[in-house]
Amino acid sequence: MARAQFSAETSGGGAFVRQPNRFTGRVTPDSTSPPGGGPDEHDRWPLEADRYRLIWCRACPWAHRARIVRGLLGLDDAISLGTVDPIRDERGWAFALDPDGFDPVLGVSFLSEAYLATDPDYTGRVTVPALVDTLTGRVVTNDYPQLTLDLSTEWRRLHAPDAPDLYPAGLRPEMDALMAEIHTDVNNGVYRCGFATSQEAYDEAFRALFARLDALSERLAGQRYLMGDTITEADVRLFTTLVRFDAAYHGHFKCNRHKLTEMPVLWAYARDLFQTPGFGETVDFDHIKRHYYGTHREINPSGIVPLGPDESGWTTPHGRG
Amino acid sequence: MARAQFSAETSGGGAFVRQPNRFTGRVTPDSTSPPGGGPDEHDRWPLEADRYRLIWCRACPWAHRARIVRGLLGLDDAISLGTVDPIRDERGWAFALDPDGFDPVLGVSFLSEAYLATDPDYTGRVTVPALVDTLTGRVVTNDYPQLTLDLSTEWRRLHAPDAPDLYPAGLRPEMDALMAEIHTDVNNGVYRCGFATSQEAYDEAFRALFARLDALSERLAGQRYLMGDTITEADVRLFTTLVRFDAAYHGHFKCNRHKLTEMPVLWAYARDLFQTPGFGETVDFDHIKRHYYGTHREINPSGIVPLGPDESGWTTPHGRG
Repeated sequence: MARAQFSAETSGGGAFVRQPNRFTGRVTPDSTSPPGGGPDEHDRWPLEADRYRLIWCRACPWAHRARIVRGLLGLDDAISLGTVDPIRDERGWAFALDPDGFDPVLGVSFLSEAYLATDPDYTGRVTVPALVDTLTGRVVTNDYPQLTLDLSTEWRRLHAPDAPDLYPAGLRPEMDALMAEIHTDVNNGVYRCGFATSQEAYDEAFRALFARLDALSERLAGQRYLMGDTITEADVRLFTTLVRFDAAYHGHFKCNRHKLTEMPVLWAYARDLFQTPGFGETVDFDHIKRHYYGTHREINPSGIVPLGPDESGWTTPHGRG
Repeated sequence: MARAQFSAETSGGGAFVRQPNRFTGRVTPDSTSPPGGGPDEHDRWPLEADRYRLIWCRACPWAHRARIVRGLLGLDDAISLGTVDPIRDERGWAFALDPDGFDPVLGVSFLSEAYLATDPDYTGRVTVPALVDTLTGRVVTNDYPQLTLDLSTEWRRLHAPDAPDLYPAGLRPEMDALMAEIHTDVNNGVYRCGFATSQEAYDEAFRALFARLDALSERLAGQRYLMGDTITEADVRLFTTLVRFDAAYHGHFKCNRHKLTEMPVLWAYARDLFQTPGFGETVDFDHIKRHYYGTHREINPSGIVPLGPDESGWTTPHGRG
């Protein structure tokens, strides 16, 4: 299957409009299916350890969320992990890092095979993260925002005993609003800067991005995390964009009012998270740079990957104890 | 005439190899021609006020040198100035900023007309700076390194009484060696990063660039200017690259180990020069950004011009008094 291009997601005004997520199954203890069974009539799959496989790419911020949340909640043993190569050619995400180029559990070379096994008519972009059922090889979900919330709420029975509550019930209205703003202006905002095909669309995305980062800096000047004293899903979502900011978005996507390292509050906040178990060890700057600069030839025709930036600052003291 | 492309200046190994300068006439009191006459048998033109016209582009670092040196030496009244538009399409440098799109003195719309009037067979890239004889419309020189040295030495009779000596005789051997290193690794080095078409050629240029910037930082940590206590041509040549570093080279040419603002000695040194009469007022960040991002579609296919970086730091105290 030829990979659908980002260019299919451009509006008449030159703005980038991300495609909707195709698969929206949910793994939940509320499924009426028995263990080993398929989705029930509401597309609810039974909650089981050792059944589902998370496919991610170390470069991808949307997939990175799921990888971090899975780790923070102690779900590493319950959900296995498959990792695609950061370089995506016209055939899409590939298991090129695995011996012989096959995912050892799913037995496929390309993630698109799982997509087509689930929906033979699928023609959109194949995306990570994807949660795949290892019994049938079908994609349960590529709905990344729901996936991580479900890991926090529906998978609770399989959490580690000391797992944090990343989506506390009492905070959800405020968190949902905050995460929506962060999504529009920051998580997806950097893509709207980078994939804009008109100056006007770029300018609008750039201004919204930095206005939001300024507002977040102000919020974080007075508290350690976005929702107060403890890490939540909102922090995970902001982190996966911030950690890519200087390595990819600042240059490749022209998000260049300032580097992250020049925004003191956000830079300290991002370092604080980076140095928290479950975050930094999941970051791979090499994969990030090779993916962005090597994959989007419409932005970087040569495919040359910059040697910078200097990343040594990430492990320096953050002073936010 | 279709503009020759930078791609004609790429080696088999993907490295950028700048073309030689075509016109190497020199204006000098040693010319044996009378006032109003053409070049003598050694291509030496007579030194005269109000005869030659310097064509520059505010965006171009090579042309910027000549603009600064002309000002520092008090030659503004002796040499008139024509300014081409920062956006260069397939027809090359154009006088699009002038009323009706004609240079009011030379009467041409494109600099290429002057090149072809001088050499009808010229097929190379048309470059700025160019010193043009207003009597005949012929290009005297586009040999930018010799041009500025000649302004310092051959044009002395027309200097302002208090003009600095930008190329002191006793310092020339050391200056020439230093300027050659700066040329290879920095002035042209940023282009070798940006126009590389292989990862290897880019990597080599990047490493040489930042190694040289580190060495220059060390040199400038102990003295105000490159040659000691007074400004010389060497400072002018380094300045015109540094002032474009964050606006263009850091992102567009992938010179991104650090921004200039992250290299404390060089950043203070560049601000010191920027705030010196004759430097800062010749800088046009808008022209610089529009030229680089709008002209090199092989690097930036969309032509979108970044809104960053924040340039407000240039006027802050430099502490190098």
